[in-house]
Amino acid sequence: MDIQLKPTERIDDIQIKNLKIIQDKEGFCFGIDAVLLANFAKIKSGQSGVDLGTGTGIIPLIIAGKSEAKHLYGVEIQTIVAEMAKRTINLNRLEDKIDIINCDLKDIESHLPKHSFDFVTSNPPYMNPTGIENQNEMVRISKQEIKCNLEDVFVAAAYLLKQGGAFYMIHRPNRIIDMSVFSRRYKLELKELKLIHPSINKAPNLALMKFVKNGKSDLKILPPLYVYDENGNYTQEINKIYSSETLGVI
Amino acid sequence: MDIQLKPTERIDDIQIKNLKIIQDKEGFCFGIDAVLLANFAKIKSGQSGVDLGTGTGIIPLIIAGKSEAKHLYGVEIQTIVAEMAKRTINLNRLEDKIDIINCDLKDIESHLPKHSFDFVTSNPPYMNPTGIENQNEMVRISKQEIKCNLEDVFVAAAYLLKQGGAFYMIHRPNRIIDMSVFSRRYKLELKELKLIHPSINKAPNLALMKFVKNGKSDLKILPPLYVYDENGNYTQEINKIYSSETLGVI
Repeated sequence: MDIQLKPTERIDDIQIKNLKIIQDKEGFCFGIDAVLLANFAKIKSGQSGVDLGTGTGIIPLIIAGKSEAKHLYGVEIQTIVAEMAKRTINLNRLEDKIDIINCDLKDIESHLPKHSFDFVTSNPPYMNPTGIENQNEMVRISKQEIKCNLEDVFVAAAYLLKQGGAFYMIHRPNRIIDMSVFSRRYKLELKELKLIHPSINKAPNLALMKFVKNGKSDLKILPPLYVYDENGNYTQEINKIYSSETLGVI
Repeated sequence: MDIQLKPTERIDDIQIKNLKIIQDKEGFCFGIDAVLLANFAKIKSGQSGVDLGTGTGIIPLIIAGKSEAKHLYGVEIQTIVAEMAKRTINLNRLEDKIDIINCDLKDIESHLPKHSFDFVTSNPPYMNPTGIENQNEMVRISKQEIKCNLEDVFVAAAYLLKQGGAFYMIHRPNRIIDMSVFSRRYKLELKELKLIHPSINKAPNLALMKFVKNGKSDLKILPPLYVYDENGNYTQEINKIYSSETLGVI
């Protein structure tokens, strides 16, 4: 297949069913967050969903590789990044399964039908726009709340999801209160919270969350996930997540 | 000192500076929750505070023993329990330091001045009134939301606290979203959350929380606390909390 790469781009093997991703070495490359989020989603055969702020498309790619989802949409505001994601879809011959939509998630109503999806995922920008400025524009938009804020993500998820549909998100624990408030405001009840700790005695630095559309109030905090063991190696749990051929190991 | 004990009552040594507590064997006896909460509070010399739903007075008693707090009030709705707490105060000759107020916390305005306290503590009933019914009335009121609900506790704490004052509470993790919402509603921002896990790979079953009156939005999740080690014994951390002569070990 003839896939054009720009000088700073490279093709990485994501180690799942021979799937590959195009990333820009000078842009935002996916990290453990995206891997954890995709694997945290519980997706049944035939379900369809949307990834908000999909970047290079890593989350739909993992979900396509590890589930029997019917159709996946990746929404990305940055044209250059969305184009990269589209080339990744072509490279993997997943045109029938994944669509990349280059639009602002605040304008989602013009692109996707309401209350139609079983699940939504999002690994949104974590940081305030006042954060680190010594990065290029493309990376800043991926990491900081420049083009959308946390509330916009909830608004879009609430618009997209069917009754009982699930919204999976990963974010920093210090935003849990804000997310709890948005969760009630947009009737996406926070039902499951899994905190990710760098190691056993460290405070968590990431939070995996499952919100359910019109769910009843009853939060379940799941057992913690530790990333590194006492020797600084990935824990068994993390290795299992990376190596599993299906979702739902978390 | 001549302290009257009823047939089912006993005097327990709380292992702090020779302090003792009167408890009813057939009533609600304090557990690790109260010990954790009292020790989680950061109380400076000369500060005054209120414990909402004080029961037999264990929390003011621990705080009096482990800090240089100026004055403590314990609010308890059940007359029989409040009387027991008053006898405990007399037994320990703490009449100048602790006052037990026998009132409904929903009527706190008739008993204590507003915006006057440095801290408030509460180990409120955790369970819905529809919970376990095979217990005596006294225990049910201590454990279930019969006489007050979670929101009432926030209303009382917001009334009592000074600007910047701290509200320390322990509750079940499944109510964190409700508490987050009340926290915003009553301007008691959740600033610190410490999850208590029975052991390393178990989900947390208790949450220690510090809310700050008119605090800025920024939740800090503290490192987890594990109660039991792999042999089923208390962890070093728990032993340290019990044996410390000052607060703030958590």
